[in-house]
Amino acid sequence: MAISNLLFKSFPPLHEPKLTIQTNRSYDYHSNKLSLWCNFQCKNRLKTDNSTTPRSKQPSLFKDQDYKVSWQEELKRAYPFEISSTHKREDEEYLQELVEKRCVENVRMLIVDSVQHAKAGHGGMALGMAEVAYFLYGNAMRYNSRNPKWFNRDRFVLSAGHGSLLQYVCLHLAGFQSVQIEDLKRLCKLGSRTPGHPENGVTEGIEVTTGPLGQGVANAVGLALAEAHLAARFNKPDVAIVDHRTYCIMGDGCSMEGISNEAASLAAHWKLHKLTLIYDDNHNTIDGSTDLTLSEDISARFEALGWNTITVDNTQGNIQAFKNALISAYSETKKPTFIRVKTRIGKLSKKEGTSKAHHGTFDEDDVKQMKQKVKWDDREPFHVIPMVYREMQAQTDLGGRLEEEWHSKLHYYQSKYPEEAAEFKLLLADGLLPGWESSLPKWSMSDPVDATRGYSGKCLNALAKVLPGLIGGSADLASSNQAYLHNLGDFKQPDSPWGRNIRYGVREHAMAGISNGLALHGGGLIPFAATFLVFSDYMKNSIRLSALSRAGVIYIMTHDSIGLGEDGPTHQPVEHLAGLRAVPHLLLFRPADGNETAGAYKVAVANRDVPSLIALSRQKVAAHVEGTSADAVEKGGYIVSDNSVELPEIILIGTGSELCLCEASANVLRKEGRRVRVVSLVCWRLFDRQPRDYKELVLPSNVSKRVSVEAGSPLGWKEYVGDEGVVIGIDDFGASGPYSEVFKKYGFTEENVTKTAKSLLSK
Amino acid sequence: MAISNLLFKSFPPLHEPKLTIQTNRSYDYHSNKLSLWCNFQCKNRLKTDNSTTPRSKQPSLFKDQDYKVSWQEELKRAYPFEISSTHKREDEEYLQELVEKRCVENVRMLIVDSVQHAKAGHGGMALGMAEVAYFLYGNAMRYNSRNPKWFNRDRFVLSAGHGSLLQYVCLHLAGFQSVQIEDLKRLCKLGSRTPGHPENGVTEGIEVTTGPLGQGVANAVGLALAEAHLAARFNKPDVAIVDHRTYCIMGDGCSMEGISNEAASLAAHWKLHKLTLIYDDNHNTIDGSTDLTLSEDISARFEALGWNTITVDNTQGNIQAFKNALISAYSETKKPTFIRVKTRIGKLSKKEGTSKAHHGTFDEDDVKQMKQKVKWDDREPFHVIPMVYREMQAQTDLGGRLEEEWHSKLHYYQSKYPEEAAEFKLLLADGLLPGWESSLPKWSMSDPVDATRGYSGKCLNALAKVLPGLIGGSADLASSNQAYLHNLGDFKQPDSPWGRNIRYGVREHAMAGISNGLALHGGGLIPFAATFLVFSDYMKNSIRLSALSRAGVIYIMTHDSIGLGEDGPTHQPVEHLAGLRAVPHLLLFRPADGNETAGAYKVAVANRDVPSLIALSRQKVAAHVEGTSADAVEKGGYIVSDNSVELPEIILIGTGSELCLCEASANVLRKEGRRVRVVSLVCWRLFDRQPRDYKELVLPSNVSKRVSVEAGSPLGWKEYVGDEGVVIGIDDFGASGPYSEVFKKYGFTEENVTKTAKSLLSK
Repeated sequence: MAISNLLFKSFPPLHEPKLTIQTNRSYDYHSNKLSLWCNFQCKNRLKTDNSTTPRSKQPSLFKDQDYKVSWQEELKRAYPFEISSTHKREDEEYLQELVEKRCVENVRMLIVDSVQHAKAGHGGMALGMAEVAYFLYGNAMRYNSRNPKWFNRDRFVLSAGHGSLLQYVCLHLAGFQSVQIEDLKRLCKLGSRTPGHPENGVTEGIEVTTGPLGQGVANAVGLALAEAHLAARFNKPDVAIVDHRTYCIMGDGCSMEGISNEAASLAAHWKLHKLTLIYDDNHNTIDGSTDLTLSEDISARFEALGWNTITVDNTQGNIQAFKNALISAYSETKKPTFIRVKTRIGKLSKKEGTSKAHHGTFDEDDVKQMKQKVKWDDREPFHVIPMVYREMQAQTDLGGRLEEEWHSKLHYYQSKYPEEAAEFKLLLADGLLPGWESSLPKWSMSDPVDATRGYSGKCLNALAKVLPGLIGGSADLASSNQAYLHNLGDFKQPDSPWGRNIRYGVREHAMAGISNGLALHGGGLIPFAATFLVFSDYMKNSIRLSALSRAGVIYIMTHDSIGLGEDGPTHQPVEHLAGLRAVPHLLLFRPADGNETAGAYKVAVANRDVPSLIALSRQKVAAHVEGTSADAVEKGGYIVSDNSVELPEIILIGTGSELCLCEASANVLRKEGRRVRVVSLVCWRLFDRQPRDYKELVLPSNVSKRVSVEAGSPLGWKEYVGDEGVVIGIDDFGASGPYSEVFKKYGFTEENVTKTAKSLLSK
Repeated sequence: MAISNLLFKSFPPLHEPKLTIQTNRSYDYHSNKLSLWCNFQCKNRLKTDNSTTPRSKQPSLFKDQDYKVSWQEELKRAYPFEISSTHKREDEEYLQELVEKRCVENVRMLIVDSVQHAKAGHGGMALGMAEVAYFLYGNAMRYNSRNPKWFNRDRFVLSAGHGSLLQYVCLHLAGFQSVQIEDLKRLCKLGSRTPGHPENGVTEGIEVTTGPLGQGVANAVGLALAEAHLAARFNKPDVAIVDHRTYCIMGDGCSMEGISNEAASLAAHWKLHKLTLIYDDNHNTIDGSTDLTLSEDISARFEALGWNTITVDNTQGNIQAFKNALISAYSETKKPTFIRVKTRIGKLSKKEGTSKAHHGTFDEDDVKQMKQKVKWDDREPFHVIPMVYREMQAQTDLGGRLEEEWHSKLHYYQSKYPEEAAEFKLLLADGLLPGWESSLPKWSMSDPVDATRGYSGKCLNALAKVLPGLIGGSADLASSNQAYLHNLGDFKQPDSPWGRNIRYGVREHAMAGISNGLALHGGGLIPFAATFLVFSDYMKNSIRLSALSRAGVIYIMTHDSIGLGEDGPTHQPVEHLAGLRAVPHLLLFRPADGNETAGAYKVAVANRDVPSLIALSRQKVAAHVEGTSADAVEKGGYIVSDNSVELPEIILIGTGSELCLCEASANVLRKEGRRVRVVSLVCWRLFDRQPRDYKELVLPSNVSKRVSVEAGSPLGWKEYVGDEGVVIGIDDFGASGPYSEVFKKYGFTEENVTKTAKSLLSK
């Protein structure tokens, strides 16, 4: 093991199983936190005595004499003064400090080279936080770069996503196949594995897609929540199979965004003590010094939220304080930990400490002096000291051993707790029990009417019984949204972390960001997030990121039109269906009755890498509109009824609560001898994806008389009604009043649909 | 003056003019804050000695003997025990306390009656906060209900907008014509002046539209910012013509929303000490006790943000502590004040103290016992004790006198500072200097290319010279957005409150909410708010509220497509143009060059009650695409070029940076002998509003071969290209890479447009 790793790696693990499991490993990393802390203090007092630590038996990489000599050579080049005396050259503890320092310098040089090569990227934060990231990847975090998806790895989120380069460099040095030197050279190039901001779908080793500031903080809370929840459900007194930490780096921008405050408030309320948020306090944002816009005491704010807060000064590159802060974080058992790390943006550069270092390339002169500063001047760009790889490899080697051990544990778990093991494995496989769909309720025409939010509540509760991963909640509208899993408890620490209802409070943005974390955790959770459709506004960017990062979140959005009535225009969505339909990949459903609601859930659950949004009514509609079908929902659009033998004269197209208006109007017209088809267009995107023949079958091009009826913006409907068709929609804000009167005011009545259809037919 | 008012009204004003202006009024309300505080203490010690206060000459309404007797009768009914002895009946101080208590009970009864009558509404918060609202309207706030728009009134925002009923009742009692008893009876009815949530366009006396939680806090910060800014620009050592306070009530929901934290952080940074935020700490949200979701110490959080914080307990209806808190707020000269008022939701009801009281009607039994509790049982619904009106009228009488005095001051100001007075009056008239448009720059084809964000920056700076109300800023992207007013300073207290650049930090949501406050302040400010288009996501609800509440905010959204390049899909808007076009009333412009950018500003500035959003490119485009016109922008769409004598064979429709692709392709096609028209559709909504003939002229129905080119979601374009047309758009996320490569990947090249056009022409 590398000397630089020993300082930290020799400690017991950052996990807390209650009992030790005997394995055939030569090391034992189970111990309690107190001893972790004691060992640390011990080691600091007795610098040369590694025998007191559980890992003292691990070979030091320095026992390889060639390796040691190579480092000595490198250190002589880098720090001739420091390394001048023989004594110092042989002091392994001291050498190790210098090794660490040199590794960080290599990180910085790779950052500078990448930015210069790409003529793009954000070097400033990356340079300032090099020590922290290097230490996290090199010493603190548990992962196996050979298997980036190992379940029990620690999770890392770079909320300040513009610092992606820092993460790419660390991933490269840590041995992740996804980032080779060639990839660093292709930073921000089209099709590269090193895009401008980290994308989980693009680069292995990236957990979540970040960039829009603050989102990563919510994602990290979601990852930590997933861990706490699954640990509570699956760990046993004698074996812990879910046991990892979550780390997140955020910058000043993240800290200013409201979403991070919302998420941080929840993290403390939920006592997510295995979450560590590292705040890069570099005192700069794009526009200049934070003095321009920030007077608050951020640590005090986090303390007020209920966090364990620690401040460390890394402006001089001393990593010791940060190490100590992590130790403190590990020993904290109730609160998440906030580590404020004071850094210098653009460290080494002439622009150091100023917002000019935030992004963009460096002057040639500047690059020259940076390289001189760290004795790098004659080296080719993208040079890596070979020993740096070996230093980092020790961490992934450790991760590999931990993974093996985890498999042993899982084996033990499986033999002792077969039932739980089966469920756990099912979750990890992101699998769904065969036949889960059959649990969805079915409605007949004789069933009592309800709002689609009511049918949704029944679907959700039925699914919860067969989908162990289903978990979620509402932003303080659980009963209004009917999004509560009965008898499955509220997630709460320490009382009921196994609870599958999440109480988000009035924090829509954090709810969605946390849901993304839950979905991308890899623990098989199927998160749902509920509020009124109009408040999708508050979480729009997180919904977008669900789609971009392939997080299969199910958004349950009730009160989906002016039909919500009395609460008035501030609460009545109008433009929202259109705006959300435009989000790439997102599946937006607006079911018309109970069965279509069930159909929407069927598609939403089945598509684990696509988010779905189900728009649901507040007002009551038929349980089963004759002709609708749960199975047909997956086609996005289908014929609900038609009295014509061949082609209809007119097609009425509806969604959601307005489908019944189409049906009612069709019945009137049919009585008058008209051939009328009614089509449900429950999910545009799915319909658009159908083969041309199917689409032609449902909406034959020869039938140009078409009317669409949806209580929302008309935007986009022309696609389906065509040039001659008429769109009945709303291009204004709604109004406060009883729902039926509001509907009437805006033309959503059978009479108006019929009148419009007749006028079209008479053309 | 009513005795209940005396306690407070007899103090000097809540304003801080440096010198006293002699007027012919018999009262003098100019004094400094210290004496205000001293007087208060004095009064409390020497209860019967009103002579020490500046207003002791004001007649007490109790000097009207009939009035006093009427109150004594009412108090005997209400508090027979308290009022039993003669001594007590004659103790005016004591009587006054009881009068106040009775007034509050009347407020509560009106709330209950309204909810029962409407079978809708949110009674819980209104009942709990009755004392606070009554005291604000009855004693603390300066306004004139006979002229609700009097400029120098105090501003009040109900961020917890679901408590609208509380405000309606107070407006009614305070004499606002907009809320009569009949209006209370029409609560939540279609077309009423008392909609479910407060709407400034509907009810006079409502400053801003609230309901979506947290927005009001940002609005209030905007109102206070407007005051601080205008005061700095116009007040003189000898006369203050801008001088009012801003009050805001928020609930637990508001406090949880990220936007309120963002706005509060800015309020403290800006030292908006005349802003008082009153937090209704009733420990409940819709889903239950706040214990479910909230562990933070909210006061400590506000302290960390830099606020003066005070906690008062009003659970027993004792208003004295709240009065003291207001006094403290008035004497604070650096920090905004946060008053945490502990209350009981649903006060009086059996549901008191529980989330069940949040909304909905009360059981008949419950109503009965509530009325019994306050000795109201035999009274008709909607009963108002006549003396309550008179009590409240005293406040508006004071407001009326203050308004008169303000006019006198204005008169004095006008004579002494005619230049400033002219500018001030221009602002108040929401007027624009005739010919302001001519300041907008014009570009010719020979001008150097730039991004439309660059042209925008020039327009903005040119406008700033002729529009004294133009003020605004960016969410930490001032230089990227080119949204900075050069040489006009940053708003900063105490250094430069006259500065017209606002540094929002990375707080998009608060920026938009604050901008709404600036626009609705009535001081003639024309706020602009800038960020990347993709981050419109973070402020979507505030943008919606700009449109709903007719706030003429100008949103400057740069980096408006995948054309931004390297930052990748997290920063590349795709669905945003579609989603924002669907927002009712909002004018979305996507100008193609310098002149269209100027045209967009011309319409945006001229429309003071409609928000505009100008989407601008990061990449460079021609300064003047031949055929474009600034003046034509107001039509939303127009012909840019056409080589056909009568009708073209094909129409290419573009917006923004893609218009030049249309032009380039048209030129290729024309060289091949094709008759091609190019249309700029710079603002859909404005085009849609044109007369049918004009639209037919631009897009003749006989020309069915049309191609639209826009680097955004295809959603909605079918409206303009028709059934046979082709939409070149993006239905996927973008990619990180140099802009030209990204554009090519997604088909945004002259070659692809030409190919598409040819394929259509050959059909």
